[in-house]
Amino acid sequence: MQDTDRDLLPEGLGDRLPQAAWAAQHVRRMAHDVLAGHGYERVDTPMLEFEKALASRMAGVQARRMFRFVDPISLRMLAVRSDMTAQVARIAATSLSNAARPLRLSYSGPVLAIKGDGLDPSRERLQIGAELIGSDSVAAAAEIVEVAIEALRAAGATGVSVDFTLPDLVDALSAEALPLPSGQIEAVRQMLDAKDAGGLVDAGGAAYLPLLYAVGPFAGAIEKLAQFDAGGVLADRIDGLRRIAARVEGKARLTLDPSERHGFEYQSWFGFTIYADGVTGTMGRGGTYRILGRAGADPEPATGFSLYPDPLLDSLAVTSTTPQRLFLPLGHDPQVAARQRAIGWATVAALDETDDAVALGCSHRLEAGEAVPL
Amino acid sequence: MQDTDRDLLPEGLGDRLPQAAWAAQHVRRMAHDVLAGHGYERVDTPMLEFEKALASRMAGVQARRMFRFVDPISLRMLAVRSDMTAQVARIAATSLSNAARPLRLSYSGPVLAIKGDGLDPSRERLQIGAELIGSDSVAAAAEIVEVAIEALRAAGATGVSVDFTLPDLVDALSAEALPLPSGQIEAVRQMLDAKDAGGLVDAGGAAYLPLLYAVGPFAGAIEKLAQFDAGGVLADRIDGLRRIAARVEGKARLTLDPSERHGFEYQSWFGFTIYADGVTGTMGRGGTYRILGRAGADPEPATGFSLYPDPLLDSLAVTSTTPQRLFLPLGHDPQVAARQRAIGWATVAALDETDDAVALGCSHRLEAGEAVPL
Repeated sequence: MQDTDRDLLPEGLGDRLPQAAWAAQHVRRMAHDVLAGHGYERVDTPMLEFEKALASRMAGVQARRMFRFVDPISLRMLAVRSDMTAQVARIAATSLSNAARPLRLSYSGPVLAIKGDGLDPSRERLQIGAELIGSDSVAAAAEIVEVAIEALRAAGATGVSVDFTLPDLVDALSAEALPLPSGQIEAVRQMLDAKDAGGLVDAGGAAYLPLLYAVGPFAGAIEKLAQFDAGGVLADRIDGLRRIAARVEGKARLTLDPSERHGFEYQSWFGFTIYADGVTGTMGRGGTYRILGRAGADPEPATGFSLYPDPLLDSLAVTSTTPQRLFLPLGHDPQVAARQRAIGWATVAALDETDDAVALGCSHRLEAGEAVPL
Repeated sequence: MQDTDRDLLPEGLGDRLPQAAWAAQHVRRMAHDVLAGHGYERVDTPMLEFEKALASRMAGVQARRMFRFVDPISLRMLAVRSDMTAQVARIAATSLSNAARPLRLSYSGPVLAIKGDGLDPSRERLQIGAELIGSDSVAAAAEIVEVAIEALRAAGATGVSVDFTLPDLVDALSAEALPLPSGQIEAVRQMLDAKDAGGLVDAGGAAYLPLLYAVGPFAGAIEKLAQFDAGGVLADRIDGLRRIAARVEGKARLTLDPSERHGFEYQSWFGFTIYADGVTGTMGRGGTYRILGRAGADPEPATGFSLYPDPLLDSLAVTSTTPQRLFLPLGHDPQVAARQRAIGWATVAALDETDDAVALGCSHRLEAGEAVPL
C-alpha cells in the first residue's frame, strides 16, 4: 500500500483530538454522575453480538444498518452494536431477571452503523442512556424525562427543549372514537407524520385533521388536544402528559407534536425528543416501550432514553476548560510537583533542556516551589 | 431462531454487570485523572479502520488477530481495532504532526481480537494507555514507568510490581562484544526467552549463559548484569535501568529479566511488564519504540504503556464502594432529594406504593427530610 494510504480513515469514522476528547469525557462523566445520583446503575455491553440476537431484541432497528461479518470462531454472523438499548434489555431479561423492579440501568459507549443518517455522515457515535425496566407508568416517564434533561444540562447543554409525542395515538383513536378501515390506518399515520392535511383527507382521515394543529408550545397544544378529544379516549394520555410536563417545567422548553411518529415506531404510549441550543439535529429521544423477557416469559414494560452527544462536543470543547498546564523544569522537586497536581494543575515535566514550556501549552512554570506565570 | 438463542453471547464476549461496570468506570476515571495530571491529553480513536492502515502501523501486531470484513461503503477491508497504540501513533503522525514534542497523549476504550490469549478467553477488553511521542530517553522511560504505576495504584491495584527488560539486548551484544553467526542470533534469542540453558549452549550462545542468572529482584540482578557486561557495551542501558529504578523505588516491587522478549518484539532498548496482586497474568506493558511518521517523514522515537485492567475488575468490584442508596417515598420533596444527591447519596424514587426499598438496594429512607436507616 502507498505510504499516504496509511494515514486515511474510512468515511464517517474519525478521531477525537484533545479538546473534543476532553469534552466527550466530561459529558460522559457528568451524565453518569447524574444517572448514578438517581439510582441508575451502570452496565457495560460487548461491542459485538450474534447478529440475530441483536436484531431479534431490536424491534424495528434494521439489521441492515449494522456492520456484519462471520465470526471465525463460531462461524455464525456477528454484528457490531448499533444501539445499546437492546443489549441492556437483554441484561434485564437474563442476568438481572431476578433483580427487583423497577430496575434502573445506565450505559454509554460507541455505537456504529454502516451509513450515517441524513445530515450526519458519522458512522460511529457515542450513545449515553438509561432504562427504567418494569414500568411504563406516568411516574416512570416523568422520571426518565427529568433525568434526561438533568443529564444533558449537567453535561453542558444549554437551551434544552423537549418535544412530547403519543406514538400509539392513531391506534388508540381508530380503535373506538374515530374508526378507520384497517386498510387506511397506515396511510393516515403517514399523512399525520408528514403533516399533510390534503393527504390526510384523501386517506379518509379528515376526522384527524385537528391533530395537525394541536402542535407547538406545550401549554397551548395540550389544550387543543384536549378539546379535540371529545370522546375522552385520550383523557389518560393527556393527563399523563400534563403530569410529566409539570414535573420538568422550568427545566426545559416543552412542546407537543402528538402525531409525530418518526423514530417512535416501537414506542408505546409516550415518546419524547430532546434538542439543545447550537445542535442542528436531535440530541436524543426516549419513551415507553416493552422489552422481550427471558425465553417463555412475558414482555416487560420499560421506559428509557438515549442521548447522542457528539454534535455537542465541538461547542462544549470551546467552553469546557482543560486543566492549566504547569511546566516542571529539570531537577524540580517531585513532592512539590505532586502537591501542584493535587490542587488541580496538569504538570508537564521537562525531559531535557530543549523542552519548550510555551510550545507545550504551559501557562506557568514551577520556580522555587511556586507556579509563576510565563 | 429459537427464543433461547436470543439470550446467548458469542464466546469470549460478555457484559459487565453493575459491580464490575462501576469498577471499570472507577478505573478509567482514576487512570485518566492521573494521566491528565501529568500532562497527557486524551484522544479518542475509531473502533474501525482500514485493515491495511492499522496493520501497517502495528509492527508485528498480527492482522490475523483482528476481526475483519468488507466495508459496504468503500468496498475495502475494515478491521476492528485490537490495539489503540497504532491509532494514537497515527494521530501523532498526522493531525498532531505539528504539535510540539514531546507530545503526551492518553486513551482508553475497548479493543477486540478474534481469539483470547492463553489463559484468558476474552475477545474484548479495556485498554488504557499513554504515549510520550518524540523521546525514548531514560527520562521519558522513567516518566512512563512512574505514571503507569501511579495510574494503576490510583485505580485500586495493590502489590504492583514491574519487571524490566532490555528488548534489543542480543542485538547489542552480538554486534560487538559477543559476536554470533547471523544464522544463530534468532536461535540464541529464543533459548534466552525460553530460559533454556542447554538449548542456549547448543545454539552456540554459551557466552550468553550468565544472562539467565541476571534475573530477579532488581538490585541484585542489575549487579549481575553489570558484572557480565565486562566489555561495557551495556553500560548505558544498565545506567538507564538504574535511573528508572531509582525514580520509582518504593512505589512498586522491581525485578529484572534482561533477556525477556515475549511481547517486546518491537520495543527498542527498554521494556517493562506490570503485575498486581490478585491478578494472574500481566496488567500491562510498555517501553520505548519508534513510530512511523507521516508519509515521507522519519520515524519518531516514543515511549508508552498499555494497561488491560479487566482482570482487576472483579477484585475491585468487591472493594470499590458504590454510593449508598436512599429510598424516596411517594410525595417526597424534590428539593430535599436533590440536596441528598448533592452530598453523595444515590436516590431511588418510589414510582408507586408497591416499590420495595430494601429489595431495591436502599440502606436508608427519606423521612421528614432526613435519611433514616432501614
